[in-house]
Amino acid sequence: MKGVHHVGVAVDDLDDAISTYERLWGAEVAGRETLDERGVEAASLRVGTGHVELLAALGPETPVGRFLAKRGPGMHHIAYEVDDLSAELARLQSEGVRLIDESPRRGLFGTEVAFVHLESVHGVLSELVECG
Amino acid sequence: MKGVHHVGVAVDDLDDAISTYERLWGAEVAGRETLDERGVEAASLRVGTGHVELLAALGPETPVGRFLAKRGPGMHHIAYEVDDLSAELARLQSEGVRLIDESPRRGLFGTEVAFVHLESVHGVLSELVECG
Repeated sequence: MKGVHHVGVAVDDLDDAISTYERLWGAEVAGRETLDERGVEAASLRVGTGHVELLAALGPETPVGRFLAKRGPGMHHIAYEVDDLSAELARLQSEGVRLIDESPRRGLFGTEVAFVHLESVHGVLSELVECG
Repeated sequence: MKGVHHVGVAVDDLDDAISTYERLWGAEVAGRETLDERGVEAASLRVGTGHVELLAALGPETPVGRFLAKRGPGMHHIAYEVDDLSAELARLQSEGVRLIDESPRRGLFGTEVAFVHLESVHGVLSELVECG
């Protein structure tokens, strides 16, 4: 792992949450994008040298919509940056890790991503990100 | 904010979780410490350039113990590094932000810290950290 790429946070209202992060933490919006096939609208925020990704659901029957209905707004996942996502996925699979995505798929902001099931990481939904 | 200092994760078994993070993400233990007055044993893990702090409860009637009983193991807080914690707390208080700690207190690994209530941050328990 190269490091923590971002922390993913599920929110009810994207504009309202962006405004809070700007006001409290001096965050700056680095990008904003809708990923229809995942049912999510996201804002990537710079907080100093770190990144927080705010995620709003496009509807209740989406991964983030179901998360919000079950848990309420809050921390959603930790994303780690990797050099070679396919190689990492092969390694994890050989170790019996439960993958949500067995091969890389299109992520936000031009990345390739794959999610690892929280059952394999002590309750933490974990994302691997390869930057383009 | 200088950046994300660490992501805090509540775990049931500290040794088991450390082992998982080492195996899955190549994490290295940078420090391990018990903070009796907070009822927590913590391990600071380096994951590449990032940091994850694993938190185990010393008993059920502790902040992490109550979190685990209610939510189960998983993501607990986001910690941001600041230069001047007292100044940040004064600023946040003047904005009506709900603080758990109104003044800096001793944190883990030689830091001074204060927590901001999740109600003021869209469900995300947030910690401010001033490094010594």
